[in-house]
Amino acid sequence: MTYTPAPRDPKQTPVRINLLSDTQTRPTPAMRDAMARADVGDEQIGDDPTVNLLCERVADLLGKEAAVFMPSGTMCNVAATLVHCRPGDEILAHESAHIIAREGGAHAALGGFQITALPGADGQFAPDTFRKALHPRTRYQPPQTVVSAEQTANIGGGTIWKKTDLDEVVQIARSNGMATHMDGARLLNACVASGISARDMTAGWDSAWIDFSKGLGAPIGGVIAGSRDFIDEVWRWKQRLGGSMRQAGICAAACVYALDHHVDRLADDHANARALARGLSQIAGMQVQQPETNLVFFTPDGAGVTGDRMVEALRNRGVLLAMMDGRIRACTHLDVTAAMIDETVGLVREIVRGA
Amino acid sequence: MTYTPAPRDPKQTPVRINLLSDTQTRPTPAMRDAMARADVGDEQIGDDPTVNLLCERVADLLGKEAAVFMPSGTMCNVAATLVHCRPGDEILAHESAHIIAREGGAHAALGGFQITALPGADGQFAPDTFRKALHPRTRYQPPQTVVSAEQTANIGGGTIWKKTDLDEVVQIARSNGMATHMDGARLLNACVASGISARDMTAGWDSAWIDFSKGLGAPIGGVIAGSRDFIDEVWRWKQRLGGSMRQAGICAAACVYALDHHVDRLADDHANARALARGLSQIAGMQVQQPETNLVFFTPDGAGVTGDRMVEALRNRGVLLAMMDGRIRACTHLDVTAAMIDETVGLVREIVRGA
Amino acid sequence: MTYTPAPRDPKQTPVRINLLSDTQTRPTPAMRDAMARADVGDEQIGDDPTVNLLCERVADLLGKEAAVFMPSGTMCNVAATLVHCRPGDEILAHESAHIIAREGGAHAALGGFQITALPGADGQFAPDTFRKALHPRTRYQPPQTVVSAEQTANIGGGTIWKKTDLDEVVQIARSNGMATHMDGARLLNACVASGISARDMTAGWDSAWIDFSKGLGAPIGGVIAGSRDFIDEVWRWKQRLGGSMRQAGICAAACVYALDHHVDRLADDHANARALARGLSQIAGMQVQQPETNLVFFTPDGAGVTGDRMVEALRNRGVLLAMMDGRIRACTHLDVTAAMIDETVGLVREIVRGA
Amino acid sequence: MTYTPAPRDPKQTPVRINLLSDTQTRPTPAMRDAMARADVGDEQIGDDPTVNLLCERVADLLGKEAAVFMPSGTMCNVAATLVHCRPGDEILAHESAHIIAREGGAHAALGGFQITALPGADGQFAPDTFRKALHPRTRYQPPQTVVSAEQTANIGGGTIWKKTDLDEVVQIARSNGMATHMDGARLLNACVASGISARDMTAGWDSAWIDFSKGLGAPIGGVIAGSRDFIDEVWRWKQRLGGSMRQAGICAAACVYALDHHVDRLADDHANARALARGLSQIAGMQVQQPETNLVFFTPDGAGVTGDRMVEALRNRGVLLAMMDGRIRACTHLDVTAAMIDETVGLVREIVRGA
Repeated sequence: MTYTPAPRDPKQTPVRINLLSDTQTRPTPAMRDAMARADVGDEQIGDDPTVNLLCERVADLLGKEAAVFMPSGTMCNVAATLVHCRPGDEILAHESAHIIAREGGAHAALGGFQITALPGADGQFAPDTFRKALHPRTRYQPPQTVVSAEQTANIGGGTIWKKTDLDEVVQIARSNGMATHMDGARLLNACVASGISARDMTAGWDSAWIDFSKGLGAPIGGVIAGSRDFIDEVWRWKQRLGGSMRQAGICAAACVYALDHHVDRLADDHANARALARGLSQIAGMQVQQPETNLVFFTPDGAGVTGDRMVEALRNRGVLLAMMDGRIRACTHLDVTAAMIDETVGLVREIVRGA
Repeated sequence: MTYTPAPRDPKQTPVRINLLSDTQTRPTPAMRDAMARADVGDEQIGDDPTVNLLCERVADLLGKEAAVFMPSGTMCNVAATLVHCRPGDEILAHESAHIIAREGGAHAALGGFQITALPGADGQFAPDTFRKALHPRTRYQPPQTVVSAEQTANIGGGTIWKKTDLDEVVQIARSNGMATHMDGARLLNACVASGISARDMTAGWDSAWIDFSKGLGAPIGGVIAGSRDFIDEVWRWKQRLGGSMRQAGICAAACVYALDHHVDRLADDHANARALARGLSQIAGMQVQQPETNLVFFTPDGAGVTGDRMVEALRNRGVLLAMMDGRIRACTHLDVTAAMIDETVGLVREIVRGA
Repeated sequence: MTYTPAPRDPKQTPVRINLLSDTQTRPTPAMRDAMARADVGDEQIGDDPTVNLLCERVADLLGKEAAVFMPSGTMCNVAATLVHCRPGDEILAHESAHIIAREGGAHAALGGFQITALPGADGQFAPDTFRKALHPRTRYQPPQTVVSAEQTANIGGGTIWKKTDLDEVVQIARSNGMATHMDGARLLNACVASGISARDMTAGWDSAWIDFSKGLGAPIGGVIAGSRDFIDEVWRWKQRLGGSMRQAGICAAACVYALDHHVDRLADDHANARALARGLSQIAGMQVQQPETNLVFFTPDGAGVTGDRMVEALRNRGVLLAMMDGRIRACTHLDVTAAMIDETVGLVREIVRGA
Repeated sequence: MTYTPAPRDPKQTPVRINLLSDTQTRPTPAMRDAMARADVGDEQIGDDPTVNLLCERVADLLGKEAAVFMPSGTMCNVAATLVHCRPGDEILAHESAHIIAREGGAHAALGGFQITALPGADGQFAPDTFRKALHPRTRYQPPQTVVSAEQTANIGGGTIWKKTDLDEVVQIARSNGMATHMDGARLLNACVASGISARDMTAGWDSAWIDFSKGLGAPIGGVIAGSRDFIDEVWRWKQRLGGSMRQAGICAAACVYALDHHVDRLADDHANARALARGLSQIAGMQVQQPETNLVFFTPDGAGVTGDRMVEALRNRGVLLAMMDGRIRACTHLDVTAAMIDETVGLVREIVRGA
């Protein structure tokens, strides 16, 4: 029983403030209503109008020819590399990227791909690091086929890849005959925070996807976009992976609703993240990474409390956060208000004081 | 564009009677309501009470220790063989089984498994055929690790595996150290039609699953059950395959509703199937396989119309059916009434007359 | 200890007549001499003149652009499908083909390919059987990418595929965009027996190989040939599979010697096989398949002795044969003389008489 | 034509001094004689006495229960991970290890394994680096199943892993339920140089192999050893990978000869390497890594000549060396004499002077 999630212990303090992840968002009443009224059909035979609409919307948003609805962002990543690569090919990505660190070795397991982990600050590799990692095509080394960037860089602190860096990575990849893949789990956070459109942000990237079950607040699903030929092959892998569903319009309706109502409001999450970082910074000894989007990483050790103890103490007070690679991560989202941020800062201060 | 489903042509005759598949069912108002009111959480961390409830219900129904919710039946099959087998292992199944004929080579592609296609009438292999296909364990042949049965046998005509045959297959497998897997896409049809409980039908099978997006009428999902250890490993593959979702309780609520309201009524689908078969049989020259559950296979050639022409002529009259391995398949389900059956028989008769 | 070969029991009767397989041939003194004097280098960097010569000779023999030396015929088959296919693709071959029945599931295990087993008499599928097994390209079925023929058909009785059938298979494959692969383990037997050149026999086949460790009498190796691009990709897989060797010219020298001295003499093996079949046929009740090349399949049950008992009784008299799919297989080769054939027939007669 | 080795250009200066690799060694007359007189049989059925002898010798040398002969060291590595791991498992190795850098992505391609590249000086990771790379067993990260060490560390400069470090790695692995694999391509160099027996050096390692086609001077082959169960499974993969040969005793005879005559003399190669390093160090500006075994890495840039130009200039004078990760590698072996070392140093000096 290592892999099976355990239901929450009913004796535990109920969670009042859930900063664990933006995947925790629950559908709002209006979103539920949109789902309940969704026009649906069998998506596998092209008959679900709501899925079709969602795919058109995302293809347009990302400036690509076509798009497909998937049950998760992980399946977007997995299907993309399965299309771009052949067994024994090499994928280059940042060492903290989701495809290396959080997908259970799926790209090796399901596709036979070797991933080279590139170093770099804040979850991003410099274009030059990528360039230096290229090697000539020989029998002894895997063909380098895809480079992947995660926008925003989750474990890097929710940082935003600069458009100029993205462009340079694309240019290097192209001149080496490589495909480019953008893991856009939180792409719209990057767009809202930077003022750069999603279409511009993904320009030149052969495949890109956005997740609807994070800050956008939908219960299920990601949508991956690319050329018509790419998406055609993705459909084949969606079938094999077991991602082809039926009346998926129920879920797609939540995503369409999110595109209409939950994009601009990501700015609120970013403001809340900045407020949290500001509040925490004022506690002596607290180390806080300045947030660019909706993720706040901090280390309380300097304030006399280990990360693990801080997380536990907060959980006992009804506040949920995550330890991630030795730091605490707080994530703001739809279900987190400014008042909750104030309360959280207050509780942290209280815990530090009591230490 | 070979794999991408094309949206239905708006100039086509609207579908009034959809006998294409029981996957075409649309959620009823009451089911939609149950979904809209579902209590949800993040299923990946064990926090979705509706998903948890559904898994408990199915584990209990199938008499297994544990169960997992999946976005599709294909993922149930794929995850099961990924857990049961190692690359280069051999799976034995009927030559028309879904895992061979309808999953795009997924078991080879994702797992590296070789499937041996066993012959047999009506989509079922005789226990003796299975026995004779066993070979000694040598370096030259793949280890035979799993036997799979599909209950009911779809392409075989929706036939029901006899309990005695299932038991004998289990016994042969066990005495050869093999695991047993039941693809129960339409298991509950078999149970309702035969009066044998799902728990008895799957007794001795190491893994078994049921599909909720077929006759049970839910929009999305299958649930696979087995021992606690098996399910634990399934969770790992669910993650890798991209089947781990978030607030999946929205979808699970439809499944729970279906368990409560849509199981017994499968008998209506069976009655409709029998009525359809009876009606068609009365047309001179029509070859009709007597249905055991909700699938009716027939060949109109003897009546002077090819299968392809019959399907097209019916589509032009608003009735949707499928060609499958050279025969026409009609599938009854939740959205098909007795009146529609009468009308369909009448239209077939009319088409034959006009030929 | 299922897979590890056991060294022969020293108490067993020494083998005087080895009809087990043509793989049993031992290098002749002249062949050993050629090996000892071979000019060698590092084949991995193109520096082994004997390997280079052998590859040129085989490419020329088979009328292909290029060729590669491999440690075994199995690696020729495995590398070929790894180049021709992508994971989830479908290979079509006769149900008794070596790639299905004797390579431990390697094509699924290492490549992720699904093999469809075609029926047909004498180890060969009819071109029409192949044609009928083709299906349209959909998401639900694996893409059909390669058809493979085994010349001669080993388990089929060492039968020779007719040139007209080979041509028709090629034509069907081409018009369906499929690649063609010939497992030519005993191709030269077919050529010597039929009088058709190897170049003609493999004309139109995208890849073809011959085995040197069977009737040709070399200790190790096969050579696969095809287009320059195909062979280039084979080199990559040879490296990955661990088939890249160093001073392989030692082994290649035996193969070059075999091409010069052991091809025409295959006719002797065929004559011996015919003599054996003739002799066995004269024993009442013995069922004997008329040999086309160097393999003789027979069933002694009608003469009152089971196959297993006959094989054992012969082994106790110093004659080695194999049970294969319920029949006895005798294989003639370089180390089998006409006198040994006579003696074998005599011993079989004696065993039958004593039964 | 990226992967196919090109035969040497006949117009090029003939190679007089081959320091490219110890894989360049050609069999000596005595070794050729041993091969020509080898007692052989079919190794696949346990009938080759010379192969059997070699395997016993190596199993004994490495203190393991059993061993198998393989056509290459790469196949030893590939088969080992195929036995130790399941798809999606994680292997930990130094970032310059052969299994990452020189096997074409085989472990991902053929097995589906994700390799984590550990940093560390001189081709070795510190035990503590290994310890820190361990993570808890979750669904999100691949199970960590094997740690691999390369003795000597080739690209690290032919450095010798200290026995205490090897022991600590084993201890960490064991207490985390992981298997240990030693890539012993040049293990005997480490043993001869350090005075530690091969048995001691591989004590506690679940699998270990030695290469015979490097400093030991045989033309072909490696032998991998481990427990009886491990070797049994290796046999299965040897078959699938196409590594099962026939009268392999011809090649094994060279290996047996090497064990008898070419082990102690590795000390000469080490002395030559030291002499080369000494000579090169005396050239102003030359950066030379002090050799521990038979590999000498140096950088001539400080002496006014780039590595590429130096390698080319030496090739034009009949001396072959390799560029490897930005440095020049010279490798001493059986075919390299002390006089050749002196001559090489003289030529390097001359080239530097002329720059």
